[in-house]
Amino acid sequence: MARRGPYPDDGPLPDPPAPKAAGEPWGETRVVGKPLPRIDAYERVSGTAVFPRDVALPDMLHAAILRCPHAHARVVAVDASAALAMPGVRAVLTPDSPGADIPWYDGTSRLLDPHCRYEGEEVAAVAAETPQQARDALRAVAVTYETLPFVVEDEAAAKAGAPKVQESGNLVRDPMVYTRGDVDRGFAQADAVFEAAFTTPCEIHTPMEVHGSVARWDGNALTVWDTTQGVFGIQGELAEALKMPLSRVRVIGHYMGGGFGSKLTLGKYTVIAALLARSTARPVKLFLSREETFLCVGNRPANSIRVRIGGRKDGTLTAIDYRSLGAAGAYPTWAGTSFLAADLYLCPNVRTEDATVYINAGQARPFRAPGFPQGAWALEQAMDGLARELGLDPLDLRLKNIPDASQRRGGQPYTSTGLKRCLEEGARAFGWREARARAEDEGVVRRGVGLAAAIWAYGGGPPSTAVVKLYPDGSANLNMGAADIGTGTKTVMAQVVSEELGVPLDRIAIENADTATTEFTGPSGGSKTVPSDAPAVRAAALEVKRQVLEAAATQMEVSAGDLVLSEGRIASSRDPAKHLALADLKVLSEQQVLVGVGKRHANPEGKIANPFSAHFAEVEVNSRTGEVKVLRLLGAHDSGRVMNARTYENQVFGGMTMGIGFAMTEHRVLDRNQTGRMVNANWHDYKIPTMLDVPPQSTCLPVDPHDVECNTTGAKGLGEPATIPTAAALANAIFHATGVRAADTPLNPTRLAGFFDAGPKEG
Amino acid sequence: MARRGPYPDDGPLPDPPAPKAAGEPWGETRVVGKPLPRIDAYERVSGTAVFPRDVALPDMLHAAILRCPHAHARVVAVDASAALAMPGVRAVLTPDSPGADIPWYDGTSRLLDPHCRYEGEEVAAVAAETPQQARDALRAVAVTYETLPFVVEDEAAAKAGAPKVQESGNLVRDPMVYTRGDVDRGFAQADAVFEAAFTTPCEIHTPMEVHGSVARWDGNALTVWDTTQGVFGIQGELAEALKMPLSRVRVIGHYMGGGFGSKLTLGKYTVIAALLARSTARPVKLFLSREETFLCVGNRPANSIRVRIGGRKDGTLTAIDYRSLGAAGAYPTWAGTSFLAADLYLCPNVRTEDATVYINAGQARPFRAPGFPQGAWALEQAMDGLARELGLDPLDLRLKNIPDASQRRGGQPYTSTGLKRCLEEGARAFGWREARARAEDEGVVRRGVGLAAAIWAYGGGPPSTAVVKLYPDGSANLNMGAADIGTGTKTVMAQVVSEELGVPLDRIAIENADTATTEFTGPSGGSKTVPSDAPAVRAAALEVKRQVLEAAATQMEVSAGDLVLSEGRIASSRDPAKHLALADLKVLSEQQVLVGVGKRHANPEGKIANPFSAHFAEVEVNSRTGEVKVLRLLGAHDSGRVMNARTYENQVFGGMTMGIGFAMTEHRVLDRNQTGRMVNANWHDYKIPTMLDVPPQSTCLPVDPHDVECNTTGAKGLGEPATIPTAAALANAIFHATGVRAADTPLNPTRLAGFFDAGPKEG
Repeated sequence: MARRGPYPDDGPLPDPPAPKAAGEPWGETRVVGKPLPRIDAYERVSGTAVFPRDVALPDMLHAAILRCPHAHARVVAVDASAALAMPGVRAVLTPDSPGADIPWYDGTSRLLDPHCRYEGEEVAAVAAETPQQARDALRAVAVTYETLPFVVEDEAAAKAGAPKVQESGNLVRDPMVYTRGDVDRGFAQADAVFEAAFTTPCEIHTPMEVHGSVARWDGNALTVWDTTQGVFGIQGELAEALKMPLSRVRVIGHYMGGGFGSKLTLGKYTVIAALLARSTARPVKLFLSREETFLCVGNRPANSIRVRIGGRKDGTLTAIDYRSLGAAGAYPTWAGTSFLAADLYLCPNVRTEDATVYINAGQARPFRAPGFPQGAWALEQAMDGLARELGLDPLDLRLKNIPDASQRRGGQPYTSTGLKRCLEEGARAFGWREARARAEDEGVVRRGVGLAAAIWAYGGGPPSTAVVKLYPDGSANLNMGAADIGTGTKTVMAQVVSEELGVPLDRIAIENADTATTEFTGPSGGSKTVPSDAPAVRAAALEVKRQVLEAAATQMEVSAGDLVLSEGRIASSRDPAKHLALADLKVLSEQQVLVGVGKRHANPEGKIANPFSAHFAEVEVNSRTGEVKVLRLLGAHDSGRVMNARTYENQVFGGMTMGIGFAMTEHRVLDRNQTGRMVNANWHDYKIPTMLDVPPQSTCLPVDPHDVECNTTGAKGLGEPATIPTAAALANAIFHATGVRAADTPLNPTRLAGFFDAGPKEG
Repeated sequence: MARRGPYPDDGPLPDPPAPKAAGEPWGETRVVGKPLPRIDAYERVSGTAVFPRDVALPDMLHAAILRCPHAHARVVAVDASAALAMPGVRAVLTPDSPGADIPWYDGTSRLLDPHCRYEGEEVAAVAAETPQQARDALRAVAVTYETLPFVVEDEAAAKAGAPKVQESGNLVRDPMVYTRGDVDRGFAQADAVFEAAFTTPCEIHTPMEVHGSVARWDGNALTVWDTTQGVFGIQGELAEALKMPLSRVRVIGHYMGGGFGSKLTLGKYTVIAALLARSTARPVKLFLSREETFLCVGNRPANSIRVRIGGRKDGTLTAIDYRSLGAAGAYPTWAGTSFLAADLYLCPNVRTEDATVYINAGQARPFRAPGFPQGAWALEQAMDGLARELGLDPLDLRLKNIPDASQRRGGQPYTSTGLKRCLEEGARAFGWREARARAEDEGVVRRGVGLAAAIWAYGGGPPSTAVVKLYPDGSANLNMGAADIGTGTKTVMAQVVSEELGVPLDRIAIENADTATTEFTGPSGGSKTVPSDAPAVRAAALEVKRQVLEAAATQMEVSAGDLVLSEGRIASSRDPAKHLALADLKVLSEQQVLVGVGKRHANPEGKIANPFSAHFAEVEVNSRTGEVKVLRLLGAHDSGRVMNARTYENQVFGGMTMGIGFAMTEHRVLDRNQTGRMVNANWHDYKIPTMLDVPPQSTCLPVDPHDVECNTTGAKGLGEPATIPTAAALANAIFHATGVRAADTPLNPTRLAGFFDAGPKEG
């Protein structure tokens, strides 16, 4: 995608703004917001960054996991004697080993459970001197399985008589139903009603860095290097699993190579590595193969969704009825998708239902906006369909129903609602009206535009604690618990410190994501990292600034309120002749460091901070081959303040790329008939978008509502909103071009050509 | 040495003391003071502790240093081409390489200086794939030397016409002279005067872990694992040498294998490793050989001391004249020894002079009580001699002259003076009077007792900042900058946290000695670690406690002053029915961590906190062979509060052992005639005491003055006082047994048998 560069020269810091009360929302900023490159770009690009996958410790063993090859089976016997006799093998863990009975999946299973409910479930593990020896030895572990009937599709699993995945039945729990108003009356009031059924694919996270850990014991203390989105969550779960105090479990995740939601919770591999390390008294490294990560560490659940939506001629929505069925995989989790249907648009009468069933497949995990792209796929196509029924421009239908409060959450107002501006300014920048008018929906190659909007249901909050330290030479250090999951968190937080303390970015060092040396925060997920942690970092920096300015005021015999700190120098804003080098600040030269602890403040009482977005797409569809070419995309986002214009763009373009994958290429294929096994558990057969699949020209359009209520930085979170509406916008553009309503993903030539052969489904 | 064990069972914590104002000095303690084992004992004994010497990084190169084989020479040419062509060699650093001109030794030299002023001075360095390849390649570096005249003894160097070590001459600076009163008049008032000349040996630190570093660059950020007593000092010196901001230099020294003062400052090896790592873009490990550490990383300077001391019949001292000459080695440092002479005893008329000269040998560094054991060797033998002249028991002579203020430092009073109690209680416990009476000074095997006393001139102080974190499960984490140099610092600091927060020791984790993750403190040296850092740690723990109790008071609707925190539970001291588990404390379950930052408070205005000690020795001397057997030792110490009775004993017995080495076995031997080179630069020829050289039965007698003024913990520091008087006490015991005044060390059979052959020097 085209970048907006060249970026302005970073250059020296501009003059600091006039001093104002500490903690007050920022007005103009001098560092925050700039399109600065990543502060760790060199390490990441040169390869000096040590990701958990790169950790190598002296005397380290390598472990590998033997996994069930059946979709559903019972382990009758495990004989590890031959494996134990192989060269280099130091330990084998089987379902009979100590620790193998650690409860897992909310107690529905255990670490190594003889009842295997999906292909890839953990059966045994080997630790050996080399990774090759460990994998070789797996083949020598003799396992006798009794295979069981399986079911791998949500609708099939929901039927009576389906093979039981869990003894309790295939419904994870009673469906979650939400209602407001009277849906039947709402539909009766409608001038038009649109109804359709949609399906969305099971999508795999496949982050660059595969899942895994290195575990080392020092006496009764465990250190784990884990590729995780949140070290503190892993620490807590490990402490619970191994019955240890938190202080004795250290989890380190300085760098990590992507997670997208699949690295929020403790993996079995981590506990297995820890158990093998304890039994061998050696450090143990256990990283999955790419193929294993396709099977075992999460996915976006497949969903079947039916939407019925009604509105009046003026565009007022009167009713939404939304029913979603999702596949949890073999163990309890949540596969609901209804949030958007209940809260994106003003609508007095809404009923949503989310049902989740078990299937014989790996457990679903949160995946970049869990449930939301699926919900947008269904709702935003239904809105498109209703607009057509009502003879309205889909943009106008949406603009007619903009909420300023959360209807689903007790009518609490939003701290800011940029949805209208996202739609209007996005449409203007995209040239929506013109493009909509000039669509070519005849001929072989057809062209069309579509749009879709989104809300993201979270906006950050406590807890988060950060520590900032300032040194006499004017350089600074930030200790921050948050993982930088590739989004630029470290860069943004360094900008926050720089903004407050006037320390140039290249003089700020960050220690992050280490439970022993940084403070608690939630995991980097839910688009909550910046809105949760940046205010804590800002508070810590402000606390240091307070100490500096108060001490300087005493030393300089002026009022602290008149002083400004920038680039290692304290100066009076009233009398430029009065200034002091940081190195000459007595308290700092005496103590050599000033330390500030900052905490995330509480969220505003009775209000909700949520990000919004609208995506616009233009496509070209070959109606003979079914080939779709994405010509351009525009993402208009209200994520509050733009913390760094470059990482902001990265997020938006990355989210759109993932949206293209969700819509057009990604799809877990399970052999539903013969084996229940995944047939495309690798990067050859499971297609994620490449540079050739993304449009050469796209636009990132930040819409900043200057939200001074959401938190002290004004940022609301961007990671997930950036991927929610893309797929629906593409489907709507395809409809605009062809009249074909692409109810099912992926929108690949095979499927679309089929539509054209059969003729359009509707219209 | 016999331990006092078995230690009482550690068991559960006793009930907490009644609450009192935060920061108030401790009265009775429940954890502090107990003879608890090291919290890191398992790691240290099992070998899982990673010392810098153990650090192994992926792709790490190994470096070695080519050193000048001459005592004084000029490098004419260096040809590294053959070395560079050798297998595995990746880089060679020579005096012409970038960075080789970094100033060193206060600008009197540079990192690789063609003018080599001592055997072992750095000439070139090689980085290769293996340590063996690096050392092999050193031999292929062709260096042409022009040798120069040398001088290796202090008195010879001081003479006119001696070979010049530095162009400016051999006097490091003008002698430091201190006077009070009128020494001549003092001697005129004396009833007796004792005068003698003493020499002390050059002693080598030889800590278990040799000196060295591992350096790694991440972009423009440098991480160094260094075996050091103070990571922050190394960070500051490295930043200055390499012209980098402090925040970009990270120094880690979690474990370290002893330093005794030789690891307080930046080593050339560290900078060489950093330069080689930068030029090869690989991590580089550079550790010295044992032989190199004998030559190049410090020593206790040899001293020649003349003392004249006069007193009246009642034991009142009237005058002390003390002149010391010491050898700095080839570069500027301080080799003075006069402190004790000026401040240990009441005396109105004192003159001291300290002169330091250059010799062609490695630079001296601070060595466990720099200058003090030498000063005690001379002064305390002179006191012994004077007592004899006056017909007094040496104990009584000392008791007559106990100061309660520092005469040398403006008459400022001590916060506590345990010297009298050390002498009296030590004498009682040792059975001094009885032993003194029953001495056998006839026959072949003679027996005698001697004593010596000491003051140590430091008592800790700011700066030190520490961070304590408390978790909801009642476990805690301490982030502390101080290195644990083997003394038990981590254990003592954990006790302080445990004392205040009621967290059992095995639930306290410590992150220490890492500039990126812990706060500034001075190096662990000067016996200042506990008195400087323990109050900061206590303040941090008290800050956490304050947060806990205030939040609990609100939640429980009681007064915070009535609440007691212990073992994860907050209880009312008034109403036992009112209690709250820490896990149920709202603020903690919300934030998941409470963080306290603590700083070392200022020292008391106008007062001085100093430790004191007195050692008592009993020896058996074979007057035919000159063999001395140390029968027993007793160390009575006023180091303020005993923080941990077991580590306290470790320090005292360790100090005594080092004192035995100083007195009897250790001695750097330089070939003064032919080569100027060290002839015993290894553990075969340089003797440090073994278990066979220490007495089977010794006593550690803490004398706690309950000092509530020195700092909030009452501890004054122990490491150095424990070794100052031992050697002098042994010499005095030998005199008591034999009438031979052992003016020169080492007291080995060769030297002592010589005395007996020649007849006693005096008496």
